[in-house]
Amino acid sequence: MVKARKYVVKKHFQGVPKKEDFELVEHELPPLKDGEILVKAEWISVDPYLRAYNANVPVPYDQFSYQVGLVKDSKDPNYPVGSRLVSHKGWCDYAIVKDEEMPNPAERIYKLPDLKGLPPSLCVGAIGMPGLTAYFGFLEICKPKAGETVVVSGAAGAVGSLVGQIAKIQGCKVIGFAGSDDKVTWLEKELGFDKGLNYKTGDVTKALKEAAPKGIDCYFDNVGGELSSIIINQMNAKGRVSVCGSISSYNDDPTKLPKATLLQPALVFKRLTIQGFIIWDYKPQWEEGLVKLVEWVKSGQLKAKEHVTEGFENLFDAFIGMLAGENYGKAVVKV
Amino acid sequence: MVKARKYVVKKHFQGVPKKEDFELVEHELPPLKDGEILVKAEWISVDPYLRAYNANVPVPYDQFSYQVGLVKDSKDPNYPVGSRLVSHKGWCDYAIVKDEEMPNPAERIYKLPDLKGLPPSLCVGAIGMPGLTAYFGFLEICKPKAGETVVVSGAAGAVGSLVGQIAKIQGCKVIGFAGSDDKVTWLEKELGFDKGLNYKTGDVTKALKEAAPKGIDCYFDNVGGELSSIIINQMNAKGRVSVCGSISSYNDDPTKLPKATLLQPALVFKRLTIQGFIIWDYKPQWEEGLVKLVEWVKSGQLKAKEHVTEGFENLFDAFIGMLAGENYGKAVVKV
Repeated sequence: MVKARKYVVKKHFQGVPKKEDFELVEHELPPLKDGEILVKAEWISVDPYLRAYNANVPVPYDQFSYQVGLVKDSKDPNYPVGSRLVSHKGWCDYAIVKDEEMPNPAERIYKLPDLKGLPPSLCVGAIGMPGLTAYFGFLEICKPKAGETVVVSGAAGAVGSLVGQIAKIQGCKVIGFAGSDDKVTWLEKELGFDKGLNYKTGDVTKALKEAAPKGIDCYFDNVGGELSSIIINQMNAKGRVSVCGSISSYNDDPTKLPKATLLQPALVFKRLTIQGFIIWDYKPQWEEGLVKLVEWVKSGQLKAKEHVTEGFENLFDAFIGMLAGENYGKAVVKV
Repeated sequence: MVKARKYVVKKHFQGVPKKEDFELVEHELPPLKDGEILVKAEWISVDPYLRAYNANVPVPYDQFSYQVGLVKDSKDPNYPVGSRLVSHKGWCDYAIVKDEEMPNPAERIYKLPDLKGLPPSLCVGAIGMPGLTAYFGFLEICKPKAGETVVVSGAAGAVGSLVGQIAKIQGCKVIGFAGSDDKVTWLEKELGFDKGLNYKTGDVTKALKEAAPKGIDCYFDNVGGELSSIIINQMNAKGRVSVCGSISSYNDDPTKLPKATLLQPALVFKRLTIQGFIIWDYKPQWEEGLVKLVEWVKSGQLKAKEHVTEGFENLFDAFIGMLAGENYGKAVVKV
């Protein structure tokens, strides 16, 4: 018998999630059945979508997210003891999983790709769902061409920081919005963005016009809200917008969403396309994406910065910190 | 020498256009040169885009729009005296035109298609630019499938009234928004919409939920603003939005656009695509579209209702009336 701990969401969040919305539950795992695998979590992810999807899931529920786990016991020869896998078991230290089709594709476990020596923690970051989100959500929807101007909001986050770098690899000019001057400096000095802008200070409309004098061709939107309206209203004809998230409104009541300057005039006059996506739409291409991401990280073209919080007991704080924008790059918890 | 009259826009509109923003100018047309054609306007169009594009054109300018003209004199054997053509010469009674490539594709004249006995006035309506806008803007961007639920705003207007009927031809369920109970009745009783809704009265969110219990798959947006936000937030996964116009904001200062409930959460959670277009994007397919539109109008599947104002001197009033939503179907002026 293995004693396991997991975070259960007891109440739907109202505004910023509270510690009392969660309960840390101890329970005993049953013996393994045929095909089952016992994993011990090593790296657990905290992401904006954990907040966003809360309203859609009936409570109580086990807090989902991606984790990298070490196989401790196995009745599936494809996953031997000592190997690692990625699951969506989320905020738990031990779990029993099985490699089978699931109604929700996120729930399917998979083996780590060939990391060529890179650390396994990246499999919940640049070489996992966030990396694939940046890769497909940007390349497939924005269809960037060399020389074009690309804007990324939430640019210092797990996905945004990768999108900006991928845009640079494609030969684009890249402008990133982030929430502090230090992050802006990090984008410019460490990640090679052409320009970082602090959306919290100054005249954003004016600053963006100066940074993008030829207008904007592609916009990768992580935040929604007024910042996105300002950016979209400065786009060029036939511009493409990939909508990955709407962090600015995730803590708002979904039945009373905030307002922002309307987009239809820009949509019509500039013949823009704005497309939302989830990464599952690209599931058949994941393997190809992971190979490319490993190659880019390995070669140093893609810097996969991690913001590590230590300790299973600090998952909640890591989550709240990420929602408040404390992280540079991927927020991840080391168990 | 032919005496001609034309409306010149002297000032950029502020809010609702005013009569003083225009000047009716009399001038003499020079003798025809080789390749030139003298046309007398028979039908002149008034459309929302005349308001929308005002801010982008330096004043003074001759008020553009589509018109059907009768050839009165010709030095182009392809356009003999007595034949008719469509030009973008707008609010003038006589004009000299030439069939040649123009930097702006809208400025290129063309012969009337084979109308199979239908009236030439339709060439600024259902069998002209508005008809093509409905045809390509809906079919190419919304990609409707039989059985899907389609919503149209500005549904009693020139384009919207056609979109709803084309959606019915495709086997869709169609809900149209208009600005009066009489228009709603007209949509349901005359045009065959499954449901008409008055966006000015009652609880629009609730009325739409009742009218579209299975959610909305396609939305053809003529209006923008809060109504569009309400509709878009009720769309189904993988829904498609074609943005044709933003009438609700055309009389607003373009540097101070109004706000509406933000769209990014719906875009992400439902993986929507929202695309703006102008009809010139489909120019190579126009001929094919015109043939289909003639066929549908001829067969009675597409009712091409015209709202006719008589008299060249009433162009301004017809324009203001159309902007205020007085028209059922296509607003057109008989010279």
